[in-house]
Amino acid sequence: MNAEIVAVGTELLLGQIANTNAQWISKRLASLGIPVYRHTVIGDNLERVVDAFTAAQYRSDLIIVTGGLGPTEDDMTRDAARSVLGQDLVEDAESMEKIQQFYTNNQKVMTENNRKQSLVLTGAKVLQNDEGMAPGQIVEKEGKVWVFLPGVPSEMKMLVQERVIPYFRETYTLKSEIASEMMRFIGIGESALEDELSDLISQQTNPTIAPLAGEGEVALRLTATGESDHEARTKIGSLKEI
Amino acid sequence: MNAEIVAVGTELLLGQIANTNAQWISKRLASLGIPVYRHTVIGDNLERVVDAFTAAQYRSDLIIVTGGLGPTEDDMTRDAARSVLGQDLVEDAESMEKIQQFYTNNQKVMTENNRKQSLVLTGAKVLQNDEGMAPGQIVEKEGKVWVFLPGVPSEMKMLVQERVIPYFRETYTLKSEIASEMMRFIGIGESALEDELSDLISQQTNPTIAPLAGEGEVALRLTATGESDHEARTKIGSLKEI
Repeated sequence: MNAEIVAVGTELLLGQIANTNAQWISKRLASLGIPVYRHTVIGDNLERVVDAFTAAQYRSDLIIVTGGLGPTEDDMTRDAARSVLGQDLVEDAESMEKIQQFYTNNQKVMTENNRKQSLVLTGAKVLQNDEGMAPGQIVEKEGKVWVFLPGVPSEMKMLVQERVIPYFRETYTLKSEIASEMMRFIGIGESALEDELSDLISQQTNPTIAPLAGEGEVALRLTATGESDHEARTKIGSLKEI
Repeated sequence: MNAEIVAVGTELLLGQIANTNAQWISKRLASLGIPVYRHTVIGDNLERVVDAFTAAQYRSDLIIVTGGLGPTEDDMTRDAARSVLGQDLVEDAESMEKIQQFYTNNQKVMTENNRKQSLVLTGAKVLQNDEGMAPGQIVEKEGKVWVFLPGVPSEMKMLVQERVIPYFRETYTLKSEIASEMMRFIGIGESALEDELSDLISQQTNPTIAPLAGEGEVALRLTATGESDHEARTKIGSLKEI
């Protein structure tokens, strides 16, 4: 199972925020042994979101989408998903009740556009959102797994930790864990380090070794897979001793 | 002219770092009036980098690539660019001299893989890197402009500020500046805000108004274009008074 992460939101393309959601989700997927092959950021434009979703479903087994689930007109994710997956949107009763309850509790009048936040794709597993209004959704279609999550980080994180990961562990056989560790070197260039370790680098497949240049230092990234996080870390430990 | 940013580096897909390069470049492009339609992150895999570059050139006028220009085997950007643009790689004498000088000055032996860092595409405008070894490059081909930059943030920023932006200002007519400002509201929901402002939102085209939900607050993003940053900001100022 390989994954990609699609973030929807013009604020990312204007540089107002960095896509830290993709970073956070990638770490979680790595710890589940699911390799991430791509991150995409796309703006609040229906045609471009549809294009991004269409390309993603050809490439990847698991597509995680963040953002674009709010109540306003520029929130495109639901409409794009309906179009690409060919499934209707229906109101999720539990989500709608929670939205109405929020307005009642806060003595505010609910505006009509809030109904939109309770819409989910037909047949979706609805992931109730404890931190906000729009629920997450998991949709399995034609061998592909889609996960739709709000873009607000606290809501996204709650849903991944409390809903998505437990569901994945129940539903799929997640064989290997990926562990990754950095070893940092100061006073040696990236190329000299690779040169010294070239035999080791080319012979190793698990863990793999990648030299990386940073600000004023060089690092080796050791990445191992194993049946458990412990097994993967043990492999890294053995290599570090060499 | 519309742009997209492609970042090459498995460390991004493992979640070890966030793609703050794309955020930083997007802000700079916005201030030049160049809209960014997509960010992509791709790993150190030649086939997937080639795929990403190929798709980018069909969609965008300006493709900015960060990362994958180091000296080691997993640095794929040059090879992918050669393949997609169909242009040979040649050693840039000035860059090669600087690399050799670095090793002489530091009394270290230069390893052979360092030569790779001086390779540029035939016909590229070479952007000398004051912060590191691999130069940046600008290549214009079939109406598309490609900019290749190292992934280390200090090197990337130096090259954008001192080399790329001055070159763009000289070479292209950059008509409009984009200015964007946030107005934050506490104690009103995103949907209620949109509801109150719906006429204004649908009538406005410059500035545009987008409501955004954050952690515990709601914001309006006002985005305007103008002949100058001052003109764009004046348009936003006028709207804020309403």
